[in-house]
Amino acid sequence: MLASDLRQLTVVLVRTRNPLNIGAVARAMQNFGVRDLRLVTPFEASFREARSAVGADAVLREAGEFASVAAAVGDCRLVVGTTAARRRELEQPLRGLEQAAAPVHATLAEGRVALLFGSEKHGLTREDMEHCHWLVRIGTEDAQPSMNLGQAAAVCLWELTRPVTSPVVEAEARASSGELERLGSLLMELLGAGGYTHPGKAASTEAEVRRMLRRVNVTDADTHLLMGMVRKLLWKLRWNGKDAG
Amino acid sequence: MLASDLRQLTVVLVRTRNPLNIGAVARAMQNFGVRDLRLVTPFEASFREARSAVGADAVLREAGEFASVAAAVGDCRLVVGTTAARRRELEQPLRGLEQAAAPVHATLAEGRVALLFGSEKHGLTREDMEHCHWLVRIGTEDAQPSMNLGQAAAVCLWELTRPVTSPVVEAEARASSGELERLGSLLMELLGAGGYTHPGKAASTEAEVRRMLRRVNVTDADTHLLMGMVRKLLWKLRWNGKDAG
Repeated sequence: MLASDLRQLTVVLVRTRNPLNIGAVARAMQNFGVRDLRLVTPFEASFREARSAVGADAVLREAGEFASVAAAVGDCRLVVGTTAARRRELEQPLRGLEQAAAPVHATLAEGRVALLFGSEKHGLTREDMEHCHWLVRIGTEDAQPSMNLGQAAAVCLWELTRPVTSPVVEAEARASSGELERLGSLLMELLGAGGYTHPGKAASTEAEVRRMLRRVNVTDADTHLLMGMVRKLLWKLRWNGKDAG
Repeated sequence: MLASDLRQLTVVLVRTRNPLNIGAVARAMQNFGVRDLRLVTPFEASFREARSAVGADAVLREAGEFASVAAAVGDCRLVVGTTAARRRELEQPLRGLEQAAAPVHATLAEGRVALLFGSEKHGLTREDMEHCHWLVRIGTEDAQPSMNLGQAAAVCLWELTRPVTSPVVEAEARASSGELERLGSLLMELLGAGGYTHPGKAASTEAEVRRMLRRVNVTDADTHLLMGMVRKLLWKLRWNGKDAG
Protein backbone atom coordinates (compact mmCIF):
# COMPACT_ATOMS: atom_id res chain seq x y z
CA MET A 1 0.00 0.00 0.00
CA LEU A 2 1.19 3.51 -0.67
CA ALA A 3 2.06 5.63 2.33
CA SER A 4 -0.34 8.26 1.03
CA ASP A 5 -3.19 5.74 1.21
CA LEU A 6 -2.38 4.88 4.80
CA ARG A 7 -3.24 8.42 5.80
CA GLN A 8 -6.79 7.58 4.76
CA LEU A 9 -7.02 4.65 7.15
CA THR A 10 -8.71 5.31 10.47
CA VAL A 11 -8.88 3.06 13.51
CA VAL A 12 -12.00 3.52 15.64
CA LEU A 13 -12.12 2.12 19.17
CA VAL A 14 -15.65 1.88 20.52
CA ARG A 15 -16.12 2.00 24.30
CA THR A 16 -12.63 0.73 25.10
CA ARG A 17 -12.12 0.26 28.84
CA ASN A 18 -8.46 -0.56 29.38
CA PRO A 19 -5.88 2.21 28.93
CA LEU A 20 -3.19 -0.40 28.23
CA ASN A 21 -5.23 -1.60 25.28
CA ILE A 22 -5.66 1.92 23.91
CA GLY A 23 -1.91 2.35 24.22
CA ALA A 24 -1.23 -1.00 22.55
CA VAL A 25 -3.46 -0.15 19.59
CA ALA A 26 -1.74 3.24 19.23
CA ARG A 27 1.65 1.52 19.29
CA ALA A 28 0.66 -0.97 16.58
CA MET A 29 -0.63 1.93 14.48
CA GLN A 30 2.69 3.69 14.86
CA ASN A 31 4.50 0.45 13.91
CA PHE A 32 2.52 0.15 10.70
CA GLY A 33 2.36 3.82 9.74
CA VAL A 34 -1.32 4.42 10.48
CA ARG A 35 -1.98 7.74 12.18
CA ASP A 36 -5.68 8.48 12.59
CA LEU A 37 -7.11 7.07 15.83
CA ARG A 38 -10.65 7.89 16.97
CA LEU A 39 -12.28 6.90 20.22
CA VAL A 40 -16.00 6.59 20.71
CA THR A 41 -17.01 7.23 24.33
CA PRO A 42 -13.93 5.63 25.91
CA PHE A 43 -13.97 5.39 29.67
CA GLU A 44 -12.78 8.89 30.48
CA ALA A 45 -10.16 7.90 33.00
CA SER A 46 -8.74 5.28 30.61
CA PHE A 47 -8.34 7.73 27.80
CA ARG A 48 -6.70 10.34 30.02
CA GLU A 49 -4.38 7.74 31.49
CA ALA A 50 -3.40 6.31 28.11
CA ARG A 51 -2.86 9.76 26.68
CA SER A 52 -0.67 10.94 29.52
CA ALA A 53 1.37 7.74 29.73
CA VAL A 54 5.12 8.19 29.47
CA GLY A 55 6.08 7.75 25.86
CA ALA A 56 2.55 8.24 24.59
CA ASP A 57 3.13 8.76 20.95
CA ALA A 58 1.77 11.18 18.37
CA VAL A 59 -1.08 8.83 17.46
CA LEU A 60 -2.43 8.94 20.99
CA ARG A 61 -1.88 12.64 21.53
CA GLU A 62 -3.78 13.49 18.35
CA ALA A 63 -6.55 10.93 18.84
CA GLY A 64 -10.05 12.34 18.45
CA GLU A 65 -12.93 11.62 20.78
CA PHE A 66 -16.47 11.14 19.49
CA ALA A 67 -19.88 10.79 21.09
CA SER A 68 -21.16 8.17 18.67
CA VAL A 69 -20.06 5.72 16.00
CA ALA A 70 -22.04 7.76 13.46
CA ALA A 71 -20.01 10.87 14.29
CA ALA A 72 -16.71 8.98 14.23
CA VAL A 73 -17.24 7.51 10.76
CA GLY A 74 -19.04 10.46 9.17
CA ASP A 75 -16.30 11.14 6.62
CA CYS A 76 -15.57 7.49 5.81
CA ARG A 77 -16.49 5.82 2.56
CA LEU A 78 -16.06 2.32 3.84
CA VAL A 79 -16.63 1.16 7.40
CA VAL A 80 -15.37 -2.29 8.36
CA GLY A 81 -16.27 -3.80 11.73
CA THR A 82 -14.25 -6.49 13.47
CA THR A 83 -15.89 -9.42 15.21
CA ALA A 84 -14.91 -12.72 16.78
CA ALA A 85 -18.35 -14.10 15.98
CA ARG A 86 -18.60 -16.80 13.43
CA ARG A 87 -22.26 -16.36 12.76
CA ARG A 88 -24.41 -14.89 15.56
CA GLU A 89 -27.11 -13.81 13.16
CA LEU A 90 -24.94 -11.11 11.66
CA GLU A 91 -26.84 -8.74 9.41
CA GLN A 92 -23.73 -7.67 7.51
CA PRO A 93 -21.56 -9.72 5.19
CA LEU A 94 -18.67 -11.43 7.02
CA ARG A 95 -15.23 -11.79 5.45
CA GLY A 96 -12.10 -13.51 6.64
CA LEU A 97 -9.37 -10.97 7.42
CA GLU A 98 -7.30 -12.40 4.57
CA GLN A 99 -10.04 -11.24 2.18
CA ALA A 100 -10.17 -7.70 3.54
CA ALA A 101 -7.02 -6.11 2.17
CA ALA A 102 -8.00 -5.96 -1.50
CA PRO A 103 -11.33 -4.16 -1.08
CA VAL A 104 -9.89 -1.89 1.62
CA HIS A 105 -6.97 -0.87 -0.59
CA ALA A 106 -9.28 -0.21 -3.50
CA THR A 107 -11.37 2.13 -1.39
CA LEU A 108 -8.40 3.87 0.27
CA ALA A 109 -7.42 5.26 -3.09
CA GLU A 110 -10.79 7.05 -3.18
CA GLY A 111 -11.46 8.08 0.38
CA ARG A 112 -11.28 7.28 4.05
CA VAL A 113 -11.75 3.77 5.44
CA ALA A 114 -12.59 3.06 9.08
CA LEU A 115 -11.72 -0.13 10.93
CA LEU A 116 -13.89 -0.54 14.04
CA PHE A 117 -13.04 -2.44 17.21
CA GLY A 118 -15.62 -2.95 19.95
CA SER A 119 -15.14 -3.05 23.69
CA GLU A 120 -12.94 -5.71 25.27
CA LYS A 121 -15.88 -7.40 26.91
CA HIS A 122 -18.69 -7.25 24.40
CA GLY A 123 -17.18 -6.31 21.05
CA LEU A 124 -19.28 -4.29 18.64
CA THR A 125 -23.01 -4.18 19.31
CA ARG A 126 -25.64 -4.79 16.66
CA GLU A 127 -26.21 -1.04 16.63
CA ASP A 128 -22.50 -0.35 16.04
CA MET A 129 -22.55 -2.87 13.21
CA GLU A 130 -25.36 -1.01 11.47
CA HIS A 131 -22.76 1.58 10.52
CA CYS A 132 -20.56 -1.08 8.90
CA HIS A 133 -20.55 -2.03 5.25
CA TRP A 134 -19.16 -5.42 6.15
CA LEU A 135 -17.48 -7.27 8.98
CA VAL A 136 -14.15 -8.96 9.23
CA ARG A 137 -13.09 -11.88 11.36
CA ILE A 138 -9.58 -13.05 12.22
CA GLY A 139 -9.54 -16.80 11.73
CA THR A 140 -8.93 -18.15 15.23
CA GLU A 141 -9.50 -21.45 16.98
CA ASP A 142 -12.97 -22.39 18.19
CA ALA A 143 -11.55 -23.14 21.62
CA GLN A 144 -10.16 -19.60 22.03
CA PRO A 145 -11.69 -17.34 19.37
CA SER A 146 -11.46 -14.05 21.23
CA MET A 147 -8.25 -12.08 20.82
CA ASN A 148 -6.70 -9.43 22.99
CA LEU A 149 -7.58 -6.01 21.55
CA GLY A 150 -4.01 -4.81 21.07
CA GLN A 151 -3.04 -8.06 19.38
CA ALA A 152 -6.13 -8.09 17.16
CA ALA A 153 -5.38 -4.52 16.04
CA ALA A 154 -1.75 -5.43 15.29
CA VAL A 155 -2.82 -8.45 13.22
CA CYS A 156 -5.38 -6.40 11.26
CA LEU A 157 -2.93 -3.59 10.56
CA TRP A 158 -0.24 -6.03 9.50
CA GLU A 159 -2.66 -7.72 7.14
CA LEU A 160 -3.76 -4.38 5.66
CA THR A 161 -0.20 -3.12 5.18
CA ARG A 162 1.36 -6.49 4.37
CA PRO A 163 3.40 -6.39 1.19
CA VAL A 164 1.61 -8.43 -1.46
CA THR A 165 0.83 -8.58 -5.08
CA SER A 166 -2.89 -8.54 -4.69
CA PRO A 167 -5.35 -9.00 -7.50
CA VAL A 168 -6.67 -5.60 -8.49
CA VAL A 169 -10.16 -4.93 -7.33
CA GLU A 170 -12.30 -2.27 -8.89
CA ALA A 171 -12.25 0.92 -6.94
CA GLU A 172 -15.66 1.43 -5.48
CA ALA A 173 -16.62 5.08 -5.50
CA ARG A 174 -18.80 4.65 -2.47
CA ALA A 175 -20.69 7.47 -0.88
CA SER A 176 -19.32 8.62 2.46
CA SER A 177 -21.02 7.51 5.65
CA GLY A 178 -22.07 11.08 6.36
CA GLU A 179 -23.90 11.27 3.04
CA LEU A 180 -25.55 7.93 3.69
CA GLU A 181 -26.70 9.14 7.09
CA ARG A 182 -28.22 12.26 5.56
CA LEU A 183 -29.98 10.21 2.91
CA GLY A 184 -31.19 7.79 5.57
CA SER A 185 -32.57 10.61 7.71
CA LEU A 186 -34.41 12.17 4.79
CA LEU A 187 -35.80 8.79 3.83
CA MET A 188 -37.04 8.22 7.38
CA GLU A 189 -38.69 11.62 7.31
CA LEU A 190 -40.41 10.68 4.06
CA LEU A 191 -41.52 7.30 5.37
CA GLY A 192 -42.90 8.99 8.44
CA ALA A 193 -44.78 11.60 6.41
CA GLY A 194 -46.04 8.85 4.12
CA GLY A 195 -47.40 6.84 7.01
CA TYR A 196 -45.07 3.90 6.34
CA THR A 197 -43.41 3.95 9.73
CA HIS A 198 -45.65 3.22 12.67
CA PRO A 199 -44.73 5.09 15.84
CA GLY A 200 -43.70 1.94 17.66
CA LYS A 201 -41.68 0.59 14.74
CA ALA A 202 -39.61 3.64 13.76
CA ALA A 203 -36.39 2.39 15.36
CA SER A 204 -36.44 -1.00 13.68
CA THR A 205 -37.35 0.55 10.33
CA GLU A 206 -34.48 3.00 10.72
CA ALA A 207 -32.09 0.16 11.44
CA GLU A 208 -33.38 -1.71 8.42
CA VAL A 209 -32.97 1.34 6.17
CA ARG A 210 -29.47 2.01 7.50
CA ARG A 211 -28.38 -1.56 6.84
CA MET A 212 -29.83 -1.55 3.37
CA LEU A 213 -28.13 1.71 2.43
CA ARG A 214 -24.79 0.22 3.39
CA ARG A 215 -25.39 -3.15 1.82
CA VAL A 216 -26.12 -1.72 -1.58
CA ASN A 217 -23.28 0.09 -3.31
CA VAL A 218 -24.48 3.67 -3.44
CA THR A 219 -22.14 6.18 -5.03
CA ASP A 220 -22.08 9.92 -4.47
CA ALA A 221 -24.01 10.42 -7.70
CA ASP A 222 -26.69 7.94 -6.60
CA THR A 223 -26.99 9.64 -3.24
CA HIS A 224 -27.44 12.99 -4.92
CA LEU A 225 -30.11 11.63 -7.25
CA LEU A 226 -31.96 9.85 -4.46
CA MET A 227 -31.92 12.87 -2.17
CA GLY A 228 -33.46 14.97 -4.93
CA MET A 229 -36.26 12.44 -5.33
CA VAL A 230 -36.90 12.08 -1.62
CA ARG A 231 -36.97 15.86 -1.09
CA LYS A 232 -39.44 16.36 -3.89
CA LEU A 233 -41.75 13.61 -2.61
CA LEU A 234 -41.53 14.94 0.91
CA TRP A 235 -42.45 18.42 -0.26
CA LYS A 236 -45.36 17.09 -2.27
CA LEU A 237 -46.67 14.97 0.60
CA ARG A 238 -46.52 17.89 2.98
CA TRP A 239 -48.05 20.32 0.51
CA ASN A 240 -50.89 17.89 -0.26
CA GLY A 241 -51.32 17.10 3.38
CA LYS A 242 -51.61 20.79 4.26
CA ASP A 243 -54.06 21.35 1.44
CA ALA A 244 -56.10 18.37 2.54
CA GLY A 245 -56.12 19.33 6.17
CA MET B 1 -2.01 -25.13 7.21
CA LEU B 2 -3.16 -28.49 8.52
CA ALA B 3 -3.87 -28.75 12.23
CA SER B 4 -1.45 -31.67 12.39
CA ASP B 5 1.34 -29.44 11.09
CA LEU B 6 0.63 -26.82 13.74
CA ARG B 7 1.56 -29.32 16.43
CA GLN B 8 5.05 -29.17 14.96
CA LEU B 9 5.36 -25.43 15.43
CA THR B 10 7.20 -24.22 18.54
CA VAL B 11 7.47 -20.71 19.92
CA VAL B 12 10.66 -19.99 21.86
CA LEU B 13 10.91 -16.94 24.11
CA VAL B 14 14.47 -16.04 24.98
CA ARG B 15 15.10 -14.15 28.25
CA THR B 16 11.64 -12.60 28.39
CA ARG B 17 11.27 -10.24 31.32
CA ASN B 18 7.61 -9.22 31.51
CA PRO B 19 5.08 -11.81 32.69
CA LEU B 20 2.32 -9.94 30.83
CA ASN B 21 4.23 -10.51 27.61
CA ILE B 22 4.64 -14.21 28.29
CA GLY B 23 0.91 -14.39 28.94
CA ALA B 24 0.14 -12.42 25.76
CA VAL B 25 2.27 -14.74 23.63
CA ALA B 26 0.56 -17.78 25.17
CA ARG B 27 -2.85 -16.26 24.45
CA ALA B 28 -1.99 -15.58 20.80
CA MET B 29 -0.73 -19.17 20.49
CA GLN B 30 -4.02 -20.44 21.89
CA ASN B 31 -5.91 -18.15 19.44
CA PHE B 32 -4.08 -19.61 16.48
CA GLY B 33 -3.92 -23.23 17.60
CA VAL B 34 -0.19 -23.42 18.38
CA ARG B 35 0.57 -25.35 21.56
CA ASP B 36 4.28 -25.77 22.14
CA LEU B 37 5.84 -22.89 24.10
CA ARG B 38 9.42 -23.01 25.36
CA LEU B 39 11.18 -20.45 27.52
CA VAL B 40 14.92 -19.94 27.62
CA THR B 41 16.10 -18.58 30.96
CA PRO B 42 13.07 -16.38 31.60
CA PHE B 43 13.25 -14.19 34.65
CA GLU B 44 12.16 -16.73 37.22
CA ALA B 45 9.63 -14.55 38.94
CA SER B 46 8.06 -13.55 35.61
CA PHE B 47 7.57 -17.10 34.53
CA ARG B 48 6.08 -18.15 37.84
CA GLU B 49 3.77 -15.15 37.81
CA ALA B 50 2.62 -15.71 34.24
CA ARG B 51 2.10 -19.39 34.86
CA SER B 52 0.04 -18.87 37.96
CA ALA B 53 -2.04 -16.01 36.52
CA VAL B 54 -5.79 -16.53 36.72
CA GLY B 55 -6.93 -18.02 33.43
CA ALA B 56 -3.43 -19.12 32.48
CA ASP B 57 -4.15 -21.52 29.68
CA ALA B 58 -2.89 -24.94 28.75
CA VAL B 59 -0.09 -23.47 26.64
CA LEU B 60 1.39 -21.73 29.65
CA ARG B 61 0.90 -24.58 32.07
CA GLU B 62 2.69 -26.97 29.76
CA ALA B 63 5.46 -24.56 28.71
CA GLY B 64 8.95 -25.99 29.00
CA GLU B 65 11.92 -24.20 30.48
CA PHE B 66 15.40 -24.46 28.99
CA ALA B 67 18.84 -23.32 30.03
CA SER B 68 19.99 -22.37 26.55
CA VAL B 69 18.76 -21.71 23.02
CA ALA B 70 20.66 -24.77 21.88
CA ALA B 71 18.74 -26.96 24.30
CA ALA B 72 15.40 -25.40 23.40
CA VAL B 73 15.75 -25.96 19.65
CA GLY B 74 17.53 -29.32 19.83
CA ASP B 75 14.70 -31.24 18.14
CA CYS B 76 13.88 -28.61 15.50
CA ARG B 77 14.63 -28.96 11.80
CA LEU B 78 14.23 -25.28 11.07
CA VAL B 79 14.92 -22.39 13.45
CA VAL B 80 13.65 -18.96 12.47
CA GLY B 81 14.66 -15.90 14.48
CA THR B 82 12.67 -12.68 14.61
CA THR B 83 14.32 -9.26 14.48
CA ALA B 84 13.35 -5.63 14.11
CA ALA B 85 16.74 -4.89 12.60
CA ARG B 86 16.89 -3.98 8.98
CA ARG B 87 20.54 -4.78 8.51
CA ARG B 88 22.80 -4.57 11.57
CA GLU B 89 25.42 -6.80 9.99
CA LEU B 90 23.24 -9.85 10.15
CA GLU B 91 25.04 -13.08 9.42
CA GLN B 92 21.86 -14.91 8.51
CA PRO B 93 19.58 -14.40 5.55
CA LEU B 94 16.77 -11.94 6.32
CA ARG B 95 13.25 -12.42 4.95
CA GLY B 96 10.13 -10.32 5.18
CA LEU B 97 7.50 -12.07 7.31
CA GLU B 98 5.27 -12.34 4.25
CA GLN B 99 7.94 -14.59 2.71
CA ALA B 100 8.16 -16.89 5.71
CA ALA B 101 4.97 -18.92 5.50
CA ALA B 102 5.85 -20.99 2.44
CA PRO B 103 9.23 -22.31 3.65
CA VAL B 104 7.91 -22.81 7.20
CA HIS B 105 4.93 -24.83 5.94
CA ALA B 106 7.16 -26.92 3.73
CA THR B 107 9.33 -27.84 6.71
CA LEU B 108 6.44 -28.42 9.13
CA ALA B 109 5.37 -31.35 7.02
CA GLU B 110 8.79 -32.91 7.75
CA GLY B 111 9.54 -31.95 11.32
CA ARG B 112 9.53 -29.34 14.04
CA VAL B 113 10.01 -25.62 13.34
CA ALA B 114 10.98 -23.09 16.02
CA LEU B 115 10.15 -19.40 15.94
CA LEU B 116 12.43 -17.40 18.28
CA PHE B 117 11.68 -14.11 19.98
CA GLY B 118 14.35 -12.25 21.93
CA SER B 119 14.04 -10.17 25.09
CA GLU B 120 11.87 -7.05 25.08
CA LYS B 121 14.85 -4.79 25.46
CA HIS B 122 17.56 -6.27 23.28
CA GLY B 123 15.91 -8.80 21.01
CA LEU B 124 17.95 -11.83 19.96
CA THR B 125 21.69 -11.58 20.43
CA ARG B 126 24.23 -12.52 17.76
CA GLU B 127 24.82 -15.68 19.71
CA ASP B 128 21.11 -16.56 19.73
CA MET B 129 20.98 -15.93 15.99
CA GLU B 130 23.75 -18.42 15.37
CA HIS B 131 21.16 -21.10 16.06
CA CYS B 132 18.85 -19.71 13.38
CA HIS B 133 18.68 -20.88 9.78
CA TRP B 134 17.32 -17.52 8.76
CA LEU B 135 15.72 -14.42 10.24
CA VAL B 136 12.39 -12.85 9.71
CA ARG B 137 11.36 -9.22 10.02
CA ILE B 138 7.90 -7.76 10.28
CA GLY B 139 7.75 -4.82 7.90
CA THR B 140 7.33 -1.81 10.20
CA GLU B 141 7.95 1.90 9.91
CA ASP B 142 11.46 3.27 10.30
CA ALA B 143 10.20 5.74 12.86
CA GLN B 144 8.84 2.98 15.12
CA PRO B 145 10.29 -0.37 14.02
CA SER B 146 10.14 -2.17 17.34
CA MET B 147 6.95 -4.01 18.17
CA ASN B 148 5.52 -5.09 21.47
CA LEU B 149 6.38 -8.78 22.01
CA GLY B 150 2.81 -10.00 22.39
CA GLN B 151 1.74 -8.13 19.28
CA ALA B 152 4.73 -9.33 17.26
CA ALA B 153 3.99 -12.93 18.21
CA ALA B 154 0.31 -12.52 17.26
CA VAL B 155 1.26 -11.07 13.87
CA CYS B 156 3.76 -13.88 13.17
CA LEU B 157 1.32 -16.60 14.18
CA TRP B 158 -1.45 -15.05 12.10
CA GLU B 159 0.86 -14.93 9.10
CA LEU B 160 1.93 -18.54 9.55
CA THR B 161 -1.62 -19.85 9.97
CA ARG B 162 -3.28 -17.38 7.61
CA PRO B 163 -5.61 -19.03 5.11
CA VAL B 164 -4.21 -18.74 1.63
CA THR B 165 -6.37 -16.22 -0.16
CA SER B 166 -8.46 -17.39 -2.98
CA PRO B 167 -10.12 -14.62 -4.92
CA VAL B 168 -13.59 -14.65 -3.49
CA VAL B 169 -16.48 -14.14 -5.78
CA GLU B 170 -19.18 -13.12 -3.40
CA ALA B 171 -22.42 -14.86 -3.95
CA GLU B 172 -24.64 -11.85 -4.11
CA ALA B 173 -28.27 -12.72 -3.99
CA ARG B 174 -29.11 -10.06 -6.52
CA ALA B 175 -32.69 -9.39 -7.36
CA SER B 176 -33.88 -10.69 -10.70
CA SER B 177 -34.25 -8.31 -13.61
CA GLY B 178 -37.99 -8.81 -13.55
CA GLU B 179 -38.19 -7.71 -9.94
CA LEU B 180 -36.01 -4.71 -10.68
CA GLU B 181 -38.31 -3.74 -13.55
CA ARG B 182 -41.35 -3.92 -11.31
CA LEU B 183 -39.61 -1.83 -8.67
CA GLY B 184 -38.51 0.64 -11.35
CA SER B 185 -42.06 1.00 -12.70
CA LEU B 186 -43.51 1.57 -9.27
CA LEU B 187 -40.82 4.11 -8.52
CA MET B 188 -41.56 5.96 -11.76
CA GLU B 189 -45.22 5.99 -10.87
CA LEU B 190 -44.34 7.46 -7.48
CA LEU B 191 -42.02 10.08 -8.96
CA GLY B 192 -44.76 11.04 -11.40
CA ALA B 193 -47.36 11.34 -8.67
CA GLY B 194 -44.90 13.30 -6.57
CA GLY B 195 -44.24 15.79 -9.35
CA TYR B 196 -40.57 14.81 -9.65
CA THR B 197 -40.76 13.78 -13.29
CA HIS B 198 -41.68 16.48 -15.73
CA PRO B 199 -43.72 15.29 -18.71
CA GLY B 200 -40.93 15.95 -21.19
CA LYS B 201 -38.25 14.33 -19.05
CA ALA B 202 -39.94 11.08 -18.02
CA ALA B 203 -37.95 8.93 -20.43
CA SER B 204 -34.55 10.19 -19.30
CA THR B 205 -35.50 9.91 -15.62
CA GLU B 206 -36.70 6.37 -16.22
CA ALA B 207 -33.39 5.48 -17.85
CA GLU B 208 -31.52 7.03 -14.94
CA VAL B 209 -33.57 5.09 -12.38
CA ARG B 210 -33.10 1.87 -14.30
CA ARG B 211 -29.35 2.32 -14.46
CA MET B 212 -29.14 3.12 -10.78
CA LEU B 213 -31.19 0.11 -9.73
CA ARG B 214 -28.80 -2.12 -11.61
CA ARG B 215 -25.64 -0.40 -10.46
CA VAL B 216 -26.43 -0.80 -6.79
CA ASN B 217 -26.54 -4.32 -5.40
CA VAL B 218 -30.19 -4.79 -4.60
CA THR B 219 -31.22 -8.17 -3.28
CA ASP B 220 -34.66 -9.72 -3.37
CA ALA B 221 -35.17 -8.73 0.25
CA ASP B 222 -34.23 -5.12 -0.52
CA THR B 223 -36.59 -5.09 -3.49
CA HIS B 224 -39.39 -6.37 -1.33
CA LEU B 225 -38.71 -3.75 1.32
CA LEU B 226 -38.45 -0.92 -1.21
CA MET B 227 -41.64 -1.91 -3.00
CA GLY B 228 -43.52 -1.83 0.27
CA MET B 229 -42.24 1.69 0.93
CA VAL B 230 -43.00 2.94 -2.57
CA ARG B 231 -46.53 1.47 -2.56
CA LYS B 232 -47.32 3.07 0.76
CA LEU B 233 -46.02 6.46 -0.35
CA LEU B 234 -47.91 6.20 -3.62
CA TRP B 235 -51.12 5.39 -1.83
CA LYS B 236 -50.62 8.28 0.58
CA LEU B 237 -49.87 10.75 -2.22
CA ARG B 238 -52.96 9.71 -4.17
CA TRP B 239 -55.19 9.69 -1.14
CA ASN B 240 -53.96 13.13 -0.11
CA GLY B 241 -54.25 14.37 -3.68
CA LYS B 242 -57.83 13.17 -3.96
CA ASP B 243 -58.69 14.76 -0.69
CA ALA B 244 -57.05 17.98 -1.77
CA GLY B 245 -58.70 18.00 -5.18
